[in-house]
Amino acid sequence: MPELRKDPVSGRWVIVSTDRGRKPTSFAVTERKLTGGFCPLCPGNEDKTPPEIMAYRPDCSSPNTPGWTLRVVSNKFPALRIEGNLNKKAEGIYDKMNGIGAHEVIIESPNHSELLSTMPLKNIEDILRAYRERIIDLSRDKRFRYISIFRNQGERAGASLEHPHSQLIALPVVPKRPLEEFAGAKSYFDYKERCIYCDIIEQELTERERIVGENAEYFSLAPFASRFPFEIWILPKRHLSAFEQNPDWKYTFLAEIFSDTFQKLDRALACPPYNYMLHTAPLNSPSSEYNHWHFEIIPRLTRIAGFEWGSGFYINPTPPEEAAKFLRES
Amino acid sequence: MPELRKDPVSGRWVIVSTDRGRKPTSFAVTERKLTGGFCPLCPGNEDKTPPEIMAYRPDCSSPNTPGWTLRVVSNKFPALRIEGNLNKKAEGIYDKMNGIGAHEVIIESPNHSELLSTMPLKNIEDILRAYRERIIDLSRDKRFRYISIFRNQGERAGASLEHPHSQLIALPVVPKRPLEEFAGAKSYFDYKERCIYCDIIEQELTERERIVGENAEYFSLAPFASRFPFEIWILPKRHLSAFEQNPDWKYTFLAEIFSDTFQKLDRALACPPYNYMLHTAPLNSPSSEYNHWHFEIIPRLTRIAGFEWGSGFYINPTPPEEAAKFLRES
Repeated sequence: MPELRKDPVSGRWVIVSTDRGRKPTSFAVTERKLTGGFCPLCPGNEDKTPPEIMAYRPDCSSPNTPGWTLRVVSNKFPALRIEGNLNKKAEGIYDKMNGIGAHEVIIESPNHSELLSTMPLKNIEDILRAYRERIIDLSRDKRFRYISIFRNQGERAGASLEHPHSQLIALPVVPKRPLEEFAGAKSYFDYKERCIYCDIIEQELTERERIVGENAEYFSLAPFASRFPFEIWILPKRHLSAFEQNPDWKYTFLAEIFSDTFQKLDRALACPPYNYMLHTAPLNSPSSEYNHWHFEIIPRLTRIAGFEWGSGFYINPTPPEEAAKFLRES
Repeated sequence: MPELRKDPVSGRWVIVSTDRGRKPTSFAVTERKLTGGFCPLCPGNEDKTPPEIMAYRPDCSSPNTPGWTLRVVSNKFPALRIEGNLNKKAEGIYDKMNGIGAHEVIIESPNHSELLSTMPLKNIEDILRAYRERIIDLSRDKRFRYISIFRNQGERAGASLEHPHSQLIALPVVPKRPLEEFAGAKSYFDYKERCIYCDIIEQELTERERIVGENAEYFSLAPFASRFPFEIWILPKRHLSAFEQNPDWKYTFLAEIFSDTFQKLDRALACPPYNYMLHTAPLNSPSSEYNHWHFEIIPRLTRIAGFEWGSGFYINPTPPEEAAKFLRES
């Protein structure tokens, strides 16, 4: 059973694997290459993944057989385990708990080499609806406090499989980054009685210098203090604290801005590796006037070195105004 | 002139380069290889670096000529500029200032292929003394609030030159990571009237399960909530808030624990890429009962993916107890 441990100074949580499977000597520093050949996520190989939790099957085919257009399964090598009760303990001055949680894989398409920039809009809508469906289902489990949804594209971004997929981790604690964002947004709200993201949106949609793309409901933005070259956020224009509260019709607009953004990114930078993460409210929290869900996309173009790790200060060689212009024109 | 920009939600600062040197199209994703051949940091090439700020020259040779055993120069491509007055401004709801700061390179040895694990103790002592000397000198400049000292070893850790060197960045603001650590340590102190690091040290030196090495003054530790496999911290056993307050004789002991730690790391993991960072008090701050300077070493063995970026939650496949045991036996 993995263990959740808390750094007593910073409050940061870490999932520490305690199974003795991986020998320390296996850390030879080699660049992992995404293997061609056999793919456990491709149609026909449904028995190579854990049984499916949900799937979209327009042809009404049976579970765990081909015919699906999207499929959600448990991660075969989960960072956390779903079974058991939460058990919180002290170890001297340290705090830990057992590694209860869910770790799922959203297999986004039966097509092994599809990219978000090449997918039909309907396919992207389905991915976004699947995110919502899984959040709503998992929110019924009272052990979970937060759901992290993310996508790693390309081996430099940490992907171990090439087949298009996102991941979901349900956690028994709210992680540090979202906590910091809630605290920052709340302190602004306490002072101004306004949502900080709504104020950012107002300023950005007026200035337009950092806008990448836009439709009636959403827009993509190179944020003012971008940590990385070509960092992009996708935000809803209207205030909403939790992703899963979006009414169904909005996912069509969101799919459109996703498609537009990843087409621009892949054209501008020749299909770069990237990570994206959903930033949303904690599970089962009441609607909040200061939290504003959004996606953050980080192309993995530069390396993070000692200065960034040690300070939390970033050096970005590309002004976001220039990145946005370049993306708009791509 | 680079610009410092603050993310309004998280409070994180970013140095945004505003010179238009690097074209967006130059971000083709290629693995940078450390080039063999010409090295601007090697003896004889002193005219290929900016003029030296300080040097150790046992043979009393002239500045900017060979004969040095350690040399500090300005970074040829500085992230911040030393000239000018701080100019803080609003841009709508955003905050920014001009990129005033210092960015220096500590050339640690004339020997191009020396590693910390192969260096004579005297050489390591000199590096640590040079850190102190530079901090003390730069602390006279009242524009600076914090000095970040770090070392990138190997291209996977972000090094662009193979020659052994550390870097120093003097900043006009205290960065987010140290601020978080001070806040965490202060809140513990407010509750317990004790330094949290001193309590960690007490528990670790009793349990001994995560200790890597030790001498009379310092020890190395695989921390309880290690974010990364083989993460190591080096801590002084006796409370001290700022690195530069160490009396001169202590650097001999610190050099010893550095040498021991990097020998173990290089033997255990075959000279892995790593970053280390000095965590110390803000410049010109009074001695504090809760801040406790230390070094954090991060071997770069695994990739940081979307989950870590989005959540600030880490997945560590190697329990620190196992890492410490493996290192002790290496």
